[in-house]
Amino acid sequence: MSSSSPLAVPFPNMPDIAGAMPRVARAGYKEWGRCDLSYIAFDAGTTVAGVTTRNICCSAEVELCRAHLPHGRARALVVNAGNSNAFTGQRGKHAVDVITAQVAEHLNCDVTDIFVSSTGVIGVPLPVDKAQAGLRAAFDAAPCGWVDVANGIGTTDTFAKGATATAVVDGRKVQIVGIIKGSGMIAPDMATMLGYIFTNADVEAPFLQQLLSTANQESFSCITVDSDTSTSDTVLAFATGKAGNARLTSFVDAGAYAFAAALNDVCRQLAHLVVRDGEGAQKFIEIDVSGAASDESARRIGLAIANSPLVKTAIAGEDANWGRVVMAVGKAGEPANRDTLSIRFGSTIVARNGLAVADYDEAPVARHLQQQEIEIGVDLGLGAGRATVWTCDLTHGYISINADYRS
Amino acid sequence: MSSSSPLAVPFPNMPDIAGAMPRVARAGYKEWGRCDLSYIAFDAGTTVAGVTTRNICCSAEVELCRAHLPHGRARALVVNAGNSNAFTGQRGKHAVDVITAQVAEHLNCDVTDIFVSSTGVIGVPLPVDKAQAGLRAAFDAAPCGWVDVANGIGTTDTFAKGATATAVVDGRKVQIVGIIKGSGMIAPDMATMLGYIFTNADVEAPFLQQLLSTANQESFSCITVDSDTSTSDTVLAFATGKAGNARLTSFVDAGAYAFAAALNDVCRQLAHLVVRDGEGAQKFIEIDVSGAASDESARRIGLAIANSPLVKTAIAGEDANWGRVVMAVGKAGEPANRDTLSIRFGSTIVARNGLAVADYDEAPVARHLQQQEIEIGVDLGLGAGRATVWTCDLTHGYISINADYRS
Repeated sequence: MSSSSPLAVPFPNMPDIAGAMPRVARAGYKEWGRCDLSYIAFDAGTTVAGVTTRNICCSAEVELCRAHLPHGRARALVVNAGNSNAFTGQRGKHAVDVITAQVAEHLNCDVTDIFVSSTGVIGVPLPVDKAQAGLRAAFDAAPCGWVDVANGIGTTDTFAKGATATAVVDGRKVQIVGIIKGSGMIAPDMATMLGYIFTNADVEAPFLQQLLSTANQESFSCITVDSDTSTSDTVLAFATGKAGNARLTSFVDAGAYAFAAALNDVCRQLAHLVVRDGEGAQKFIEIDVSGAASDESARRIGLAIANSPLVKTAIAGEDANWGRVVMAVGKAGEPANRDTLSIRFGSTIVARNGLAVADYDEAPVARHLQQQEIEIGVDLGLGAGRATVWTCDLTHGYISINADYRS
Repeated sequence: MSSSSPLAVPFPNMPDIAGAMPRVARAGYKEWGRCDLSYIAFDAGTTVAGVTTRNICCSAEVELCRAHLPHGRARALVVNAGNSNAFTGQRGKHAVDVITAQVAEHLNCDVTDIFVSSTGVIGVPLPVDKAQAGLRAAFDAAPCGWVDVANGIGTTDTFAKGATATAVVDGRKVQIVGIIKGSGMIAPDMATMLGYIFTNADVEAPFLQQLLSTANQESFSCITVDSDTSTSDTVLAFATGKAGNARLTSFVDAGAYAFAAALNDVCRQLAHLVVRDGEGAQKFIEIDVSGAASDESARRIGLAIANSPLVKTAIAGEDANWGRVVMAVGKAGEPANRDTLSIRFGSTIVARNGLAVADYDEAPVARHLQQQEIEIGVDLGLGAGRATVWTCDLTHGYISINADYRS
């Protein structure tokens, strides 16, 4: 990995999850001296839920996950880094089939219990021989920690990203851990990037799916780095059931709300970590939208602001150029009224009811913009809809990284 | 103006338009030693048409143009550069009212015959005293050439942009000239930036509007620099009628098609010039989309590619990273099928039917990407819909310009 993002945070202490056994190996998908194949085996009885990209040109891996998720059972997850295997046609599908067959034979389970993700360059079929040799090495490897998996699934990521939370369910403390990769091509529209969540809680698959889909709406679906939606985006949640709680099947069950809150917490943390590792990011930007016609309208307006190159470069330049925020609100295509619009930077309102606040104090605004954590508030003055989205600034670093990635 | 874009082209020889008299003056809207108020007076009988931004947070000037256009008559155009007067509430509207009243009194005409545009920073009311003094100076100034107006309306533009065409209508050669400003905040979605077209042809206002709206669909609505839609976008077309042709009222009239073709030509040229002056632009990119479900679908897919930061940085890096084109097609939200998709750079097909072309010759692709004029072709393989859109690459120059504009 290249030098860490200035917004990087240390990898947290993450507990083992009983019933989930991570291992990493070197498949050598790229010319790098690091593990790039991650293999997590699950005990029988593990349930699974997932959300995947809406990008129409999705990878064979995404199609596999979509096909296997309805079964609701998981015995293994394989993640390849360095090659996304997207846009590789039948050869790409073949590579995924070989992987699932090899793992199913090793574990003596159904191929529908195997989940595969790949991330990296688009358009080059995943080399089957390297995948097979990598898997054999992984089967024989000693179990590793979550930080090793978090490093193993990264590509342009500059730091390992993990999050953890606990909840008390049915009198038992359950653990949730999550890891995620993603730095560019991040604009998960109703979907996500590569993220994996593991818990020892016992959760029925359809309920786990319901909880993950809901958490996704206020976490991964509310971040953007560069407005570009990946062909490989996937978030999977695995529940091994080893905590021994009475199985969660709906919100009627004791502890369901606590578990949902902990899952939301992990998803939110992971989403923030992706923004913190946004390509070239120097600042972490939170955009709070209120007073919109609906929550969804607020989210879209927030993303229009978060995706605006002019807003993002203004923040990079520590310039309180709120006119660009007005522009972005106006281009969102959502209900808005110029004359009821208010905007704040940090806690200072700079425009109210469609007008610059006369002689507002620029000093606290300037101080706020010099920080690493920037907050922009927009109130539409129309309704009760609200949303919070997160993004990073647009800097020379983004250009440097992306004008010369494949070569 | 700062150093010219490497894609700049010389200002063309543009003829005078009988019945249209341009003048420029210094209003001093910014601390710069240049003319920043442009005033073009039209003889009585001049017709007018226009298209304006769909940005909801539009300026008082845009609202004025929308209110005056239905009358179809024009006696004067005033353009202020350095201050957009957008998001300035009643004070902004007052400034526009003062300008129209002053000009209407000077010309002894209705205020609805006066059109005003302003461009520059958002959120600062246009200073009325400077506008009034600037107008008085303009009334007294000697008539100037179109290049002076093209320079006078610019802000971050790095070169003066003009285009011209002729058509034979009713046995008479008619002239069309156009000028335009725009460099950033360019993503005219069904609308435009600041552009002005002048012709000595005699064209009835509703027909001129029909022709301009149509031309807009294949010119200004097909370009993007940075996906950001301005609050002030306006294109106006003025027809003085001095050529003496029988008035054009519909396509039944002799010469109507020739005039429409010439108008389309001027609009297309002007749109290209804006892309050529795109902030930080080093390369001019044409994206041809074919085989789409409809023309509008093709246009949206083209703009998804043209707005993708990852595609634009790949072109800046002269990298044939067609995987990013696939990604952009897939995120457009339009009908697409990964397995019928083909992509070319220049004349070399690099992917066909959802697969990389095995061993395609990279040499001509590399040579093509080293040029200043880049062509990307995308065939969806679905239908007969097609569109061409234009954009520029995303470079360090864009970041440098926009991280420190207002300050």
